[in-house]
Amino acid sequence: MNATQKLAARIQKVNSLLCVGLDSDLTKIPANLRNQPNPQFTFNKAIIDATHDYVCAYKPNTAFYETKGDEGLKELKMTMEYLQEKYPDILTICDAKRADIGNTNEGYVQGIFDWFGFDAVTLHPYLGREALQPFLDRSDKISIILCRTSNPGAGEFQDLQTDGQPLWASVAKSISQNWNTNHNCMLVVGATYPEEMKKIRELTGDMTFLVPGIGAQGGDLAKTMAAGLNSKKEGLLINSSRGIIFASVGEDFAQKAGEEAQKLQLAINTYR
Amino acid sequence: MNATQKLAARIQKVNSLLCVGLDSDLTKIPANLRNQPNPQFTFNKAIIDATHDYVCAYKPNTAFYETKGDEGLKELKMTMEYLQEKYPDILTICDAKRADIGNTNEGYVQGIFDWFGFDAVTLHPYLGREALQPFLDRSDKISIILCRTSNPGAGEFQDLQTDGQPLWASVAKSISQNWNTNHNCMLVVGATYPEEMKKIRELTGDMTFLVPGIGAQGGDLAKTMAAGLNSKKEGLLINSSRGIIFASVGEDFAQKAGEEAQKLQLAINTYR
Repeated sequence: MNATQKLAARIQKVNSLLCVGLDSDLTKIPANLRNQPNPQFTFNKAIIDATHDYVCAYKPNTAFYETKGDEGLKELKMTMEYLQEKYPDILTICDAKRADIGNTNEGYVQGIFDWFGFDAVTLHPYLGREALQPFLDRSDKISIILCRTSNPGAGEFQDLQTDGQPLWASVAKSISQNWNTNHNCMLVVGATYPEEMKKIRELTGDMTFLVPGIGAQGGDLAKTMAAGLNSKKEGLLINSSRGIIFASVGEDFAQKAGEEAQKLQLAINTYR
Repeated sequence: MNATQKLAARIQKVNSLLCVGLDSDLTKIPANLRNQPNPQFTFNKAIIDATHDYVCAYKPNTAFYETKGDEGLKELKMTMEYLQEKYPDILTICDAKRADIGNTNEGYVQGIFDWFGFDAVTLHPYLGREALQPFLDRSDKISIILCRTSNPGAGEFQDLQTDGQPLWASVAKSISQNWNTNHNCMLVVGATYPEEMKKIRELTGDMTFLVPGIGAQGGDLAKTMAAGLNSKKEGLLINSSRGIIFASVGEDFAQKAGEEAQKLQLAINTYR
């Protein structure tokens, strides 16, 4: 079973399009965990145990682990080993936003897909398909390419008109028409730009979007679902990070995370 | 002394615009090192000791370390500690090609600049200035943003016409005119595109370019120097990785690396 099939099976099994972002910022996790050994892994384990019934995917962002260099990556590896052992049918996305030239990408491919064992990775489009081929060639995995990002200043380059359409539209078209020969590409499309999402949906058929920006960043769930669902009432992975994992910073943090995850899973489904 | 001043002082001191890329691919380092503990650090230490007289900067690419996850980053950290202790006046560039949204970048800033202690980092432009502000705010460090990359397929998006100019020109103008208020930005401009480099020089005044693509990738040194030197006969960091560090795979690998580094340092200076 490849990563795309794994995701489809998981969505069916738990009836969920929710992805939980394991952005386990050391300065934000409960104070009593911070001075224990492996605080990020301990936090993640509790969050995963409390939320797994409601999610189709987990997405740790590498920035929150690389803060502690090799020590942080050790906790990311422990998190991955825990997921692979206990919840092997949940998709794992490495939100690393990588992209280098061809031969160099081999290092990232091996590190992210093989050493850590992730099912999917997020990538920058700027270097073009030829550079990213080592990722795209891994037909057992998923490459998720940034198209329209969720940040307020996303438009600086993404909105530039390129041959009569914004750059994000050129990126969406190239990827759906030329990069996706192994049917293993997805796009990042922020919830904070529902109008752009609607156009990207029109340009890309039933392609799946990873959607950050719901919650703390201000994205609206109703508008996102209306703009982004594909013809099968799927095609969206709605990510929430801070809104779930930091719902409480007290001793009940895991329980509250579970409650918020269930709430969001159900809310998403009311729009399908 | 900030990173920009450190680089200027080092260029003066050793009369060199050469940057050596520590792309210490485990499958390419000499066979007798591979089964020792910390093979990448052991290799880097020998390369650094043999080449330091001829270089203004070292640039490890994180991909070659992340292949081994936390274990690889441990060897990168050892490399950085060695450089800081023994050769503290040589600029260190983390070729990480990162970029995330604002608050998330804080993790990379802390990891790359503070945990590892790098002087500079390479970044993707796609998310815009607003996202990269945490890097740009570090006026003690250098942000090196991808403008025109050296790979054969670089043009897929970078050559798209944006308001009458290619995307790489829009990126160059935005960065030199709007991003560089702390005078801590540089651009990546590949040696494989000397005509584009000439135009980027015209657009950006005396800004410094990090130049990959000489050597294995086919970039021509004479054309690069003619296209890229600024009004002070500087403004270029010419990077070579494989051509120096893998000049020999025998027991004389370090000695040969030193010879190649000296050769390239001198060759660069003949064009200044």
